[in-house]
Amino acid sequence: MTGFPAIDGRRLLARLDAFAAIGATPAGGVNRPALSEADRAARALLADLGAARGFSLFQDAAANLFLRRAGADDRRPPFLIGSHLDSQPTGGRFDGALGTLAALEVLETLEDRGIVTAGPVELVAWTNEEGSRFAPGAFGSQSAAAGALPAGWPETVGSDGARLGDELAATLAALPQAAMRPLGGPFAGYLELHIEQGPLLEREGALIGVVEGIQGTRWLEVAIEGQVAHAGTTPLADRRDAMAAAAAVITRLQTTVMPADADARLTVGRLTIAPGAVNVIPGEVAFSIDLRHPSGAEIDRLEAEITALAARIAAAGGCRASVRRSMDVAPARFDRRLVGIVEGAAERRGFASRRLFSGAFHDALFMARLGPAAMVFVPCRAGLSHNEAEYVEPHQAIAGAQVLCDATLEAVAASVAA
Amino acid sequence: MTGFPAIDGRRLLARLDAFAAIGATPAGGVNRPALSEADRAARALLADLGAARGFSLFQDAAANLFLRRAGADDRRPPFLIGSHLDSQPTGGRFDGALGTLAALEVLETLEDRGIVTAGPVELVAWTNEEGSRFAPGAFGSQSAAAGALPAGWPETVGSDGARLGDELAATLAALPQAAMRPLGGPFAGYLELHIEQGPLLEREGALIGVVEGIQGTRWLEVAIEGQVAHAGTTPLADRRDAMAAAAAVITRLQTTVMPADADARLTVGRLTIAPGAVNVIPGEVAFSIDLRHPSGAEIDRLEAEITALAARIAAAGGCRASVRRSMDVAPARFDRRLVGIVEGAAERRGFASRRLFSGAFHDALFMARLGPAAMVFVPCRAGLSHNEAEYVEPHQAIAGAQVLCDATLEAVAASVAA
Repeated sequence: MTGFPAIDGRRLLARLDAFAAIGATPAGGVNRPALSEADRAARALLADLGAARGFSLFQDAAANLFLRRAGADDRRPPFLIGSHLDSQPTGGRFDGALGTLAALEVLETLEDRGIVTAGPVELVAWTNEEGSRFAPGAFGSQSAAAGALPAGWPETVGSDGARLGDELAATLAALPQAAMRPLGGPFAGYLELHIEQGPLLEREGALIGVVEGIQGTRWLEVAIEGQVAHAGTTPLADRRDAMAAAAAVITRLQTTVMPADADARLTVGRLTIAPGAVNVIPGEVAFSIDLRHPSGAEIDRLEAEITALAARIAAAGGCRASVRRSMDVAPARFDRRLVGIVEGAAERRGFASRRLFSGAFHDALFMARLGPAAMVFVPCRAGLSHNEAEYVEPHQAIAGAQVLCDATLEAVAASVAA
Repeated sequence: MTGFPAIDGRRLLARLDAFAAIGATPAGGVNRPALSEADRAARALLADLGAARGFSLFQDAAANLFLRRAGADDRRPPFLIGSHLDSQPTGGRFDGALGTLAALEVLETLEDRGIVTAGPVELVAWTNEEGSRFAPGAFGSQSAAAGALPAGWPETVGSDGARLGDELAATLAALPQAAMRPLGGPFAGYLELHIEQGPLLEREGALIGVVEGIQGTRWLEVAIEGQVAHAGTTPLADRRDAMAAAAAVITRLQTTVMPADADARLTVGRLTIAPGAVNVIPGEVAFSIDLRHPSGAEIDRLEAEITALAARIAAAGGCRASVRRSMDVAPARFDRRLVGIVEGAAERRGFASRRLFSGAFHDALFMARLGPAAMVFVPCRAGLSHNEAEYVEPHQAIAGAQVLCDATLEAVAASVAA
């Protein structure tokens, strides 16, 4: 395996333990909200570890944190690897941290071996990926992709009442040794290691997920309008029951969309019913649809199908349906060359892999809008994530970091020095 | 039509107008909450109208109000006719008032004609039938049927913050001329005229509904337990989606129970979903079922069917279902002799009639537990009730009151005096 150095798996595991201690929960998980004291402690530890190896430290206006290892030609745009350090309130030890610390392991491995890369390689820890303290998530990578912070961002109020402007300023101020740099800017490529947060790899015995892209997500709000009437006196023929129509629409969608297309995801996660009395036939029901698919065209087709189907089923029950979009995030297709490099790296190591699309958002979704990006997935037990019981086997974490290292070296056209 | 005097239809309509003015709403409806100032004003007017004709006035501990016209043998138990004077907050002019004022018209017609009945005939205006200010409803008739007020009743707090104990005492005190009598007690029979509050009579062109009984009502709470999971990353095979299972159960019930049995009513009026986020597969859904049928045995059978079906459908979706009762009111079967008398009265007058079961509660439901009872329905436009647009044609109101009068006379075995 000439030219592809082995990472230090034990060091990686020790780092995972060290960061899991910051915001550790009694149940073995992590509570490290974005821009909190715990988040700042994790950033400080990362900065210290980088400084100890001589890496340069940068921050930008979104408090994205960068550790830079110089390349032979340092004017080249950097190749970025990383993920995020913030967690859900009852999150796990690996979501975000694995990708960030594997990136550190890559930089340290290059340093250990004295490898000179053509251009610089940078670890990035994106700010507020989770969005659970300050909504929405992917604050850092979205701002980087947009080249600007979102309008009015400082006034965003957190779930704990904190003001985003204050917490971001305090976070930036906590690392005065970091040089400020502009948001966004050119980069040679972006690779992110992350846990799958789904069950596919584990079920198929694959060690590495070669991520081809991220599903597009469209949120629809379906409103069904019927007529309020007396539950006892109104016979079937006179009912215009909004709940009966809504249930029929949902049942129809559940039995068609996903069974027909293994790539489609359809979820009804919210439903409201009015007037909401046991003995009153509902006059209005509104429900959400979370619709995902790797193909934007297919999402369009499914929305049209849902709209037609809701109208038809509602009309059959004497009701009216309307469908409107409440959110729309286009799918990301990752860079074909980078995806191929990830797949080749897994193959060279003899790691069973499979290609897949991510069903969850990641910072890579937004980076893919700005330049070549791809992701590496490793399995997590039972697909469990955003949960204190989230778990990745040590050999799986190490394999993922190894593929990240190999793929990074290949992507930056490394030449081993001396 | 020997022996069956015609009522004074114009007087009845004038009385309906006079009472509709008490608590009148700008939209032509009535807002006369139980035990409110408006309710007390209506009671006072009724008492004055009764006193002007020499009828005796009584109240009981539930503030049920009685106007008594003596019979030949006044020691006989009274034959009761009446309904209620309270209304929904945006109620109509006829719900309750029609039955109460038709009963007054019956007493006045007997008085006008000098008819001597074998026993006394009493108008009764039951307290708080609607239950919209102080829940639950049918306070007066339920207390009469039970022979006692419900435990802790004075502390019931109204929708406007008022205390039931205070408002009931003030209402009793407002009619000091009324003699107090014990709750409940023997009665020879009970007849109540009411609007149908459903569409059957109007649709079939029937003027009189011969009510055979009141549907039983059972409330079920169905809980479906699935597993919370990520909307995007969880493929169909791994989903244990409580909302998908709940929709399938509801759809199945809507497409079987009522289509199979025209007497059955099934309504899902409340539904809650947890955790209730657009992008999270629901782990728990709970919904109510309002189940009604004239046959108690059929309600038992339907509950068993619902329980089995919910378990089977939930299991097919990887979920678990539980069903529990939250309310159960047994059906009332009205007295066969009284029902026959109502039907005969309509026939003698040449009024098209049909037998039917009431889907709504009425005070007669509780009186039927205590003695022989029956009801007379008249159509209301489009089945609309609990609505300011509630409407009964004048000839329909008069026909209903005429049937009430004829049936009362037949039931009390009247003999026309000189």
